[in-house]
Amino acid sequence: MNEAKSRSNPEDRAAIEEVLAIYCIALDEMDLDRLAALFTADCRVDYGPDARLQSNGAADLRQSLERMWRWRRTSHHLSNVTIDFEDADTANVVSYVLAWHERPDLTSATVYGRYVDRFVRTTEGWRIAKRRMLMNGSDRAFTVDINPLERREAPAGWTAPDIDR
Amino acid sequence: MNEAKSRSNPEDRAAIEEVLAIYCIALDEMDLDRLAALFTADCRVDYGPDARLQSNGAADLRQSLERMWRWRRTSHHLSNVTIDFEDADTANVVSYVLAWHERPDLTSATVYGRYVDRFVRTTEGWRIAKRRMLMNGSDRAFTVDINPLERREAPAGWTAPDIDR
Amino acid sequence: MNEAKSRSNPEDRAAIEEVLAIYCIALDEMDLDRLAALFTADCRVDYGPDARLQSNGAADLRQSLERMWRWRRTSHHLSNVTIDFEDADTANVVSYVLAWHERPDLTSATVYGRYVDRFVRTTEGWRIAKRRMLMNGSDRAFTVDINPLERREAPAGWTAPDIDR
Repeated sequence: MNEAKSRSNPEDRAAIEEVLAIYCIALDEMDLDRLAALFTADCRVDYGPDARLQSNGAADLRQSLERMWRWRRTSHHLSNVTIDFEDADTANVVSYVLAWHERPDLTSATVYGRYVDRFVRTTEGWRIAKRRMLMNGSDRAFTVDINPLERREAPAGWTAPDIDR
Repeated sequence: MNEAKSRSNPEDRAAIEEVLAIYCIALDEMDLDRLAALFTADCRVDYGPDARLQSNGAADLRQSLERMWRWRRTSHHLSNVTIDFEDADTANVVSYVLAWHERPDLTSATVYGRYVDRFVRTTEGWRIAKRRMLMNGSDRAFTVDINPLERREAPAGWTAPDIDR
Repeated sequence: MNEAKSRSNPEDRAAIEEVLAIYCIALDEMDLDRLAALFTADCRVDYGPDARLQSNGAADLRQSLERMWRWRRTSHHLSNVTIDFEDADTANVVSYVLAWHERPDLTSATVYGRYVDRFVRTTEGWRIAKRRMLMNGSDRAFTVDINPLERREAPAGWTAPDIDR
């Protein structure tokens, strides 16, 4: 990590973190106009391989996210934000999300994921130009086909220690 | 969002975020003196419509939160902080909380909520003058009557896509 | 809390928060080389009383954390960061972690904990010199013997209010 770069721009960091938080707030309120305004008009968003989980442009994303109404309630908790400024107007940002969803029948499904984003500075502030979601994991009730995170495999010959009670 | 305002004051942002974090740390330790000191003496706190979930003043809040001892253990995880400075000494702050609670019988209950706060700068630092908790949702084991979040309804005629496996 | 101290150094705060986030990112990817590089060569790490949960030095830690491969997938969500600068090159940092783990049989186990860290500034940036993990709580499926948090007891004569529905 290039710390000289990543440390710069505390005000830009705060502005980017605010966009990440408002995405969650607006999604849980289903305020899709506010949510779509966080993205560039020509954004590319990819939650998974299903074409219905991919969007070209903020208007398309806004319409696609109407799918979230199939949940009765949701709660998206963001953390682990890392920001790498490529230049003064572009940043590559990774964040974690714990996303809880409740169905109309009151069963729930939780996904533990991350957003891999490209932010750009526009005349209206920092906006998401590209978002790809990856899934660290989920409980078994969550069945949406989100892009899986690649995790390194144990080396050959590794054996598990008996550390659990 | 007025980004010029929200971007200002990185040191004030850090101080406000610290108060939010210490609230969680002190609550999970049941260090109620430390917790009450984060609020103004005349604070108003409202977790729900039940009078026992509302407090007038830090001393009242301190006493009311003794109710948390009915849980065996708790863990409050804060995220999604947005801060809007109204002026140099006042800020409207929204944050998310994932609050896990364990009963003496080892069953647990989790609530996914948000704090809607008014912070003021005092001679002792930033303090919470007003807090209202809203609930995005909860698991079925959580039965405290927290104020519900209002979520927009799907437009008439909306139909759910068949996107789950 | 000494706010004059804790408010200082917004760029150091960002660098320390980045180390905390990368620990989680690298652990969930099992990128143990990247993870070990976040610690000083002579670090002391203590997750629990079992000797296999304690490490002396980054190389020892790297090897010990191979134990995480006994999980199929993990997700570590960090929040509630507080930073107290002891001097310009040393900081005492507390953070919360919600750590979800999935076994090969697809059962899961979640721990709600905190990291109590000592950070030092090195020529390569801020590094963790000492980490002690405490457990606020866990679900019943989590059976690793993490150091428990001490929570204050209710005063004698306290009785639980009937506040749950």
